[in-house]
Amino acid sequence: MQRVINDPDMLVEDMLPGFLEANKSLVHASSENPRTVVSNFVGQGAPRVGIVSGGGSGHWPAFIGYCGQNMVDAVAVGEIFSSPTAKAFEQCIREADSGKGVAVLYGNYAGDNMNVKMALRRVEKEGIHVATVVANDDVASAPSDQRDRRRGVAGEVLMWKCGGARAAMGGSLEEVIACAQKAIDNTRSIGIGLSPCTIPSYGKPNFSIEPGSMEVGIGHHGEPGIKVEPLKDANGMADEMVEAVCSDLPFGSGDDVVVLISGLGATPVMEQYILSARVFSDLKDRGISVYKSYVGNWFTSLEMGGVTLTLMKLDDELRECVDFSVNTPALVQL
Amino acid sequence: MQRVINDPDMLVEDMLPGFLEANKSLVHASSENPRTVVSNFVGQGAPRVGIVSGGGSGHWPAFIGYCGQNMVDAVAVGEIFSSPTAKAFEQCIREADSGKGVAVLYGNYAGDNMNVKMALRRVEKEGIHVATVVANDDVASAPSDQRDRRRGVAGEVLMWKCGGARAAMGGSLEEVIACAQKAIDNTRSIGIGLSPCTIPSYGKPNFSIEPGSMEVGIGHHGEPGIKVEPLKDANGMADEMVEAVCSDLPFGSGDDVVVLISGLGATPVMEQYILSARVFSDLKDRGISVYKSYVGNWFTSLEMGGVTLTLMKLDDELRECVDFSVNTPALVQL
Repeated sequence: MQRVINDPDMLVEDMLPGFLEANKSLVHASSENPRTVVSNFVGQGAPRVGIVSGGGSGHWPAFIGYCGQNMVDAVAVGEIFSSPTAKAFEQCIREADSGKGVAVLYGNYAGDNMNVKMALRRVEKEGIHVATVVANDDVASAPSDQRDRRRGVAGEVLMWKCGGARAAMGGSLEEVIACAQKAIDNTRSIGIGLSPCTIPSYGKPNFSIEPGSMEVGIGHHGEPGIKVEPLKDANGMADEMVEAVCSDLPFGSGDDVVVLISGLGATPVMEQYILSARVFSDLKDRGISVYKSYVGNWFTSLEMGGVTLTLMKLDDELRECVDFSVNTPALVQL
Repeated sequence: MQRVINDPDMLVEDMLPGFLEANKSLVHASSENPRTVVSNFVGQGAPRVGIVSGGGSGHWPAFIGYCGQNMVDAVAVGEIFSSPTAKAFEQCIREADSGKGVAVLYGNYAGDNMNVKMALRRVEKEGIHVATVVANDDVASAPSDQRDRRRGVAGEVLMWKCGGARAAMGGSLEEVIACAQKAIDNTRSIGIGLSPCTIPSYGKPNFSIEPGSMEVGIGHHGEPGIKVEPLKDANGMADEMVEAVCSDLPFGSGDDVVVLISGLGATPVMEQYILSARVFSDLKDRGISVYKSYVGNWFTSLEMGGVTLTLMKLDDELRECVDFSVNTPALVQL
């Protein structure tokens, strides 16, 4: 892989100044911790519940791309595919707090769980009220009766959108947490991997996908999926993903959903639209109506090839949250 | 390359339904020509100058991603890396016309030039006033005294942004054309290619870049650049690109610019931010101030690896246009 980098061990160090300068109207780094990215909108207007997230780098636009107005207030930045430190999460919580409490909305990974818990113990001693929602939308990472073992993937974007909107509307910490929890409870995702990625400091792929095959249920760091199958065409992939996601919640006739289709990095958006055409027709065949859809690179894994499908079932509250305007580096919605 | 496709000869056919469904609040296909994508905002509000563009597919989000409110009103859609038909351009002009004339803002490629000219002859007989601006921002494609031979590349995005804004502000056809022409006259771009792409129906790359080398000045279809050099680090690439672009216009101390950095497809946005950090510091060293910047995949070439740098020198009119809000599938700006 030919890269645009300086030092493979310093990617995050070298990337943050470019990100911060390009998006300086929206975000800045905390003066207390350079791995804490903070929305410029924090502290504007009436006090509100703060929204915090964070995770490993290499998933652009997750996580820092969703920091901004009405979405995530502060993001803890980890090394490539590694959890941020407890200190970065701690500082995020302090930065996001305006006296109304802070909701930490993050994905179910061992490192993140540990570091968020450590951060919570520290900031609670400082008198900040904090509560968490742990995203676990990946249906492939554990059976449906073991949701607490499932990983959080692209559904996190919808969790942040809904939690951020509820906070911006003036919701209490309990209301924001309940809304973000409902968002992720109503959300299911699955990925198909087509080609691996390489952590530059490691220098070779830490997993492999044979040409002519595809890994159904792949995780965002190349975690093994449910099965390896012969490569299908886009329609075959769509059918398989729609079935895996719909049968899990389950989603069915009469449901109103948000569709989020994301590339994993190397798969062109044009191909994602080929997939989405079939996803839309599959959903129509099932009597499921699509309220809104997002197709593009919303949650990637370096230059991994492949796609993910996420569905969220809407109710009135979630619909209102999805429509709430945001202004962030990755997602601007009027 | 493992792809998410159905039939390599039907990519555009298979992609458009997904694109149109996902973005149905912003765009639709003309009932007269399925390869004509039209903004839903055409015909809303007072009559205004229409903005038309078009080009080959495979450059997502160019060209259809920029169709929407206050940017491009109708886009002619070509096959992969091939010009749209004259008929598609014709229909775009008809759809975009609301009696104030139409500005066709496109890139300098033989096929597009020919088909736009044929379209113009037809619609002018119908009484529609049309004028054109041909983008030629790629400094690597011909010497500076032969600008009419230069290709249009990512600078087209800024031409559309400025032309679209001027039209939305109520400018006459002459004013819109003058503004779009000034935008591209004030804009210069260069690309560095790191790895080739493959047109799926052809099945193998139509050019090669040896690992450990980079092609400086590569075109958006793999057209040869100025030179092949040993692969540099991100800082070295940034220095070379900034020098090539700044010495051409020239850009110098006291100038106020827009920076647009785009990946060519396979290069992660994180790496583009590593590059942009050095671009920003190089410009600062030259006394050039950055008014606004865009970093991401704004004009790609399927899964080509590499990056492009575009600078546009601002004056008061262009600054106002750049700040004008737009709402399109690819770019939403408040």
